[in-house]
Amino acid sequence: MTATETHFQKELEELKENLLTMATVVEEAIRDAVQSLVKRDSDLAKKTFQFEGRINKLEIAIDEMCLKLLALRQPMAADLRFITSAMKIVTDLERMGDQAVNIAERTISLNQEPQLKRYIDIPQMAEIVQSMVRDVLDAFVNQDSKLARSVCERDDLVDGLNDQVVRELLTFMMSDPKTITRAVHLMIVCRCLERIADHATNIAEDVIFMLDARVIKHHADAEEEG
Amino acid sequence: MTATETHFQKELEELKENLLTMATVVEEAIRDAVQSLVKRDSDLAKKTFQFEGRINKLEIAIDEMCLKLLALRQPMAADLRFITSAMKIVTDLERMGDQAVNIAERTISLNQEPQLKRYIDIPQMAEIVQSMVRDVLDAFVNQDSKLARSVCERDDLVDGLNDQVVRELLTFMMSDPKTITRAVHLMIVCRCLERIADHATNIAEDVIFMLDARVIKHHADAEEEG
Repeated sequence: MTATETHFQKELEELKENLLTMATVVEEAIRDAVQSLVKRDSDLAKKTFQFEGRINKLEIAIDEMCLKLLALRQPMAADLRFITSAMKIVTDLERMGDQAVNIAERTISLNQEPQLKRYIDIPQMAEIVQSMVRDVLDAFVNQDSKLARSVCERDDLVDGLNDQVVRELLTFMMSDPKTITRAVHLMIVCRCLERIADHATNIAEDVIFMLDARVIKHHADAEEEG
Repeated sequence: MTATETHFQKELEELKENLLTMATVVEEAIRDAVQSLVKRDSDLAKKTFQFEGRINKLEIAIDEMCLKLLALRQPMAADLRFITSAMKIVTDLERMGDQAVNIAERTISLNQEPQLKRYIDIPQMAEIVQSMVRDVLDAFVNQDSKLARSVCERDDLVDGLNDQVVRELLTFMMSDPKTITRAVHLMIVCRCLERIADHATNIAEDVIFMLDARVIKHHADAEEEG
């Protein structure tokens, strides 16, 4: 291995570390946002907003790092695809952070009124979603398609829990109109979690695509044609 | 200009054309989805699902084209940034297409029940959103930061219309619980449109960033620090 190659490998390692750091910060933002809901702690909700700046800075830094690697190292094949995927992933991570902020905003509104229901399913959804964020970045960095597949599978669990909460909230709304505003806020909290899960699933699909050179998300189309 | 440079310019032009084509298809998907709602035409809603396959194929084709350009032409500076941005933009366009499909799905449910309200504000929102998709791709391809800024401004109009519809729907729900299911479907239709507008705004911000080498979306952070 030449000195340039060794240096390039070191830069790739640094890129991987930065991606994992960004994922950890996003995971923390989700955790704090949902904890602020469960514990009815609006101060904690407000603290969640601070993650946004950190996440944005990481996004820009990683993006610039990738551009530098593309320009100076002119990587080929697998490395090229890894770096361009990293650029897409930071966009996803940044938008997951935005969803955590949305949850915190709804929480502040919800905490001003009596609690509508016990929060059991929502923290359960959040835990799955956090594990998806963590694992999908691990899958990407370690090129682990099995782990990526398990992230895709968890998306169905999240959708199932979301459907369950939405049904429950609709029942509340129909039996007592005074619950409607709070129920809508809670539906949006669930939808934010669902969207984070979708982002993680999108990344997982890209990881699988990268590794298997096939797109499972368009599997149906291919079957149709074949 | 060398033969290689000329060829590269031709390939960049082709990339731009493909991006505009993809934007047109996404725009059509949004238009058909919203028309199927307004005209209560579930057959048209089902036709919207067919856009998904076309959009996915365009996404993969453009992505591969960008990877090829990066590998073979090893572009620098502005061209490098243009190509990596194109790869992010196709992801956004594909997700806009997904939102159009979500609208069509909700429409099919809504069309099975009596119409809750006259649809005036929703097609208005859709029209603005379509113009944002069209213009932001024009802004990217023609490197027009003024047009990109006008797309960002339209996002506020969409948010305003969305808030207005949500307030109206909450009033329906509170006065008559029988309207709740339909009102929730309509809220989600609006949220889908709002999300498409967000994607367009994200692209617009990237265009402005690319051109001005500064990130307006993180402007607030910078001001805070400065």
